[in-house]
Amino acid sequence: METQSLEMVLNEIRTALERDDYPAATKVLEGLLAPDKAELFLELNEEEQSSLLPNLTPEHSAEIFEEIDDQRAAELAQILTDDAVIKIVDEMDPDEAADLLGDIPPEMAQTVLEGIEAPEDILPLMIYPDDSAGGLMTSEFLVLRRNTSAQDAIEAIRHWSPDSEMIYYLFVVDRDKKLCGVVSLRELITASPKSKVGEIMNPDALSVSLETHQEEVARLLAHYDFLALPVVNSEGVLVGVVTVDDVIDVLEEESTEDIQRFGGTEPLHRPYLDTPVLEMARKRIGWLFLLFITATLTGSVMRLFEDELQAVIALAIFVPLLIGTGGNAGSQTTAIIIRSLATEDITAREALRVWWHEARVGLLLGLGMSIAAYVRAITWDTSTSLAITVAISTLGIVLWATGVGSLLPLLAARFGIDPALVSGPVMSTLVDATGLLIYFTIAGYIIGI
Amino acid sequence: METQSLEMVLNEIRTALERDDYPAATKVLEGLLAPDKAELFLELNEEEQSSLLPNLTPEHSAEIFEEIDDQRAAELAQILTDDAVIKIVDEMDPDEAADLLGDIPPEMAQTVLEGIEAPEDILPLMIYPDDSAGGLMTSEFLVLRRNTSAQDAIEAIRHWSPDSEMIYYLFVVDRDKKLCGVVSLRELITASPKSKVGEIMNPDALSVSLETHQEEVARLLAHYDFLALPVVNSEGVLVGVVTVDDVIDVLEEESTEDIQRFGGTEPLHRPYLDTPVLEMARKRIGWLFLLFITATLTGSVMRLFEDELQAVIALAIFVPLLIGTGGNAGSQTTAIIIRSLATEDITAREALRVWWHEARVGLLLGLGMSIAAYVRAITWDTSTSLAITVAISTLGIVLWATGVGSLLPLLAARFGIDPALVSGPVMSTLVDATGLLIYFTIAGYIIGI
Repeated sequence: METQSLEMVLNEIRTALERDDYPAATKVLEGLLAPDKAELFLELNEEEQSSLLPNLTPEHSAEIFEEIDDQRAAELAQILTDDAVIKIVDEMDPDEAADLLGDIPPEMAQTVLEGIEAPEDILPLMIYPDDSAGGLMTSEFLVLRRNTSAQDAIEAIRHWSPDSEMIYYLFVVDRDKKLCGVVSLRELITASPKSKVGEIMNPDALSVSLETHQEEVARLLAHYDFLALPVVNSEGVLVGVVTVDDVIDVLEEESTEDIQRFGGTEPLHRPYLDTPVLEMARKRIGWLFLLFITATLTGSVMRLFEDELQAVIALAIFVPLLIGTGGNAGSQTTAIIIRSLATEDITAREALRVWWHEARVGLLLGLGMSIAAYVRAITWDTSTSLAITVAISTLGIVLWATGVGSLLPLLAARFGIDPALVSGPVMSTLVDATGLLIYFTIAGYIIGI
Repeated sequence: METQSLEMVLNEIRTALERDDYPAATKVLEGLLAPDKAELFLELNEEEQSSLLPNLTPEHSAEIFEEIDDQRAAELAQILTDDAVIKIVDEMDPDEAADLLGDIPPEMAQTVLEGIEAPEDILPLMIYPDDSAGGLMTSEFLVLRRNTSAQDAIEAIRHWSPDSEMIYYLFVVDRDKKLCGVVSLRELITASPKSKVGEIMNPDALSVSLETHQEEVARLLAHYDFLALPVVNSEGVLVGVVTVDDVIDVLEEESTEDIQRFGGTEPLHRPYLDTPVLEMARKRIGWLFLLFITATLTGSVMRLFEDELQAVIALAIFVPLLIGTGGNAGSQTTAIIIRSLATEDITAREALRVWWHEARVGLLLGLGMSIAAYVRAITWDTSTSLAITVAISTLGIVLWATGVGSLLPLLAARFGIDPALVSGPVMSTLVDATGLLIYFTIAGYIIGI
């Protein structure tokens, strides 16, 4: 929503709340689309949210619960009575309801499940982790049989009339409920009315299993430009459907996780301002501390060469420059490689080809930067031998950093570890210590200390 | 496609190509979905691609051209005759065709435009930049009038029978072709056959203008879980439609750009192994060089305090540790802030709230890390005064890094600059020089050098 109109509507609601005029507040919400309702609701302070929520209709509350993040929804549910939550869950999409019930205390979830109309739609969805196809899918879908006519199929859709817009693929099952084809609403409409679904369907429907990771589901759907993917159990029985709107959220979530990991923090899983200060610090201190421990290696290397530093104090002046350049080149490499792995532009099997590509890039970058380093050194009135040391060290460190920066994420991927764990900070910290070793060793040869 | 089956099919094609048996090679492609055709084609070496391409039907070539990245498609087009390209462009979606014509040499584009069947579909799309709604939209869409009945509307869809699956939203225009509503195929089907489109449509159709940036289009569509968004010109006339499949690609592309920028490199705009070594080095050396120049500041700070370093050489040993921790904390902050801005969890207007949130996180992180630094310092046999210096400096540097790390991207966003330009490497380089200033100043007070 536009910021201006958001603020106007927000003021209307606040005025209504001050007068305890809940019908007026609800009326303002009524005209809005669900995502806007949620956005608006989150703009209210906690006190306003707690006073408004119990006075909303279950339909409005359900829309808000579906849109906001799972943890916040669970927190809000706990300020309501069990009866109120039951009514709201009845209105929610089964997949969102299952996520909510998984996040509230087990006793409350139990009570709600006993109270709702169709627990059989939600229960199966609660078994699978949120980040698998089973956790992502909805169990509300329409199945067709092969010998249904196109006309009857359209009639069935007309009578089923679901809330969701995502009814544009229909799935065809055999008598054992096993998936045997897919037909789009477009194909049903353009087919002659008497033709059988079995004749117009595509019998090679791509499907995923309940355990498939959400990122793989998303990549498949995005790769083929599909609007939905069927989910089957180990017997091939159709058990759910993942739709494109869920997949967009997954892709965004996975990109967010990758960027946060790459920045050297554990994924937050919540919007920034909704993440409490303590939780945020907890998610970040671990990596900071681990990197600190690794960074003490750099200090150890410097202590090892303390005598050399004492002899040629000018050596110390180039330390930040050299390890900085190495860290930056390594960070460039890992960012590119991690993203290429995520979008499947490259696979861990292509490690050798990637490494060779990156080695040549590293050589060019290293040569370019070593010239820059040499020029900087001589203009700082440094001795020629130190300038040569700095130039050769730069080349060596950039080559080393791009090499390690490309191989580490590929190795991680090969061993099934998230390559994004090889973050920028990890790269710079690793390159710091090893880069100094390279520098001091080269200095030893050239300056002879 | 699964790696195994990909390799099998690839071998079949290679065998056919060795025998110059192009019909056989084409036959293998026929059974595949478009994205798989393209994936397979890209696995062939350049020689194989050049020999196969002129022997494919225009339909197959068009599918491949639509799937692969624009620059590669333009390169391939140039190995074909103008006539062959004309036939291929005739088969392509207008939006993809416009992108291709924009990337091939102007004279060739001119010849092709003169040869194709419907240049009027493509020409308007060529005016707008690739990354605007105008460049993203397709000009193939079906419009309805308000007084059309639901039944007639469905009949029109049946006869129009487009290639695309993306016909699930229909747009309603008035006699001046101005957009006045949207109706989904689901609503048309579930409505009574005689009811008028004007009665069932949603008159508040959200639309974007031709100039809207693709990222904003994508965010809007994702926010509302729509399948398509109409594009209108400055008079409100419907000129195109952006569909969800294009939007997924945009979101992926923007995430890729953000991660690459954050890693300290210009966006590559091509898959990793397709980016030539020289181009890759060119996109990376600029930032490396700029950061190097900034990093010489760090060297200057060290030169400024050369006497102090000479007096207490142990000071130098903590330099990498301190600036490393500052760089890491800053990199965490910018990663989180940049992504929050991209997903619109926070806006540049909320700078103060964000900064205050981050300041408290920074205080916790700084306190934690200063304890770690103190412990490390005393276990390295350092004097108590140096250990206290290191501990206080760590707190100061982390506070400074998280503060700068949160404000810089917010400021960038406020001034309309891409916040992802404040990359991890930029943060560490900035924090290196300023962090040292903090360290040496505190050392001056406490150790009294």
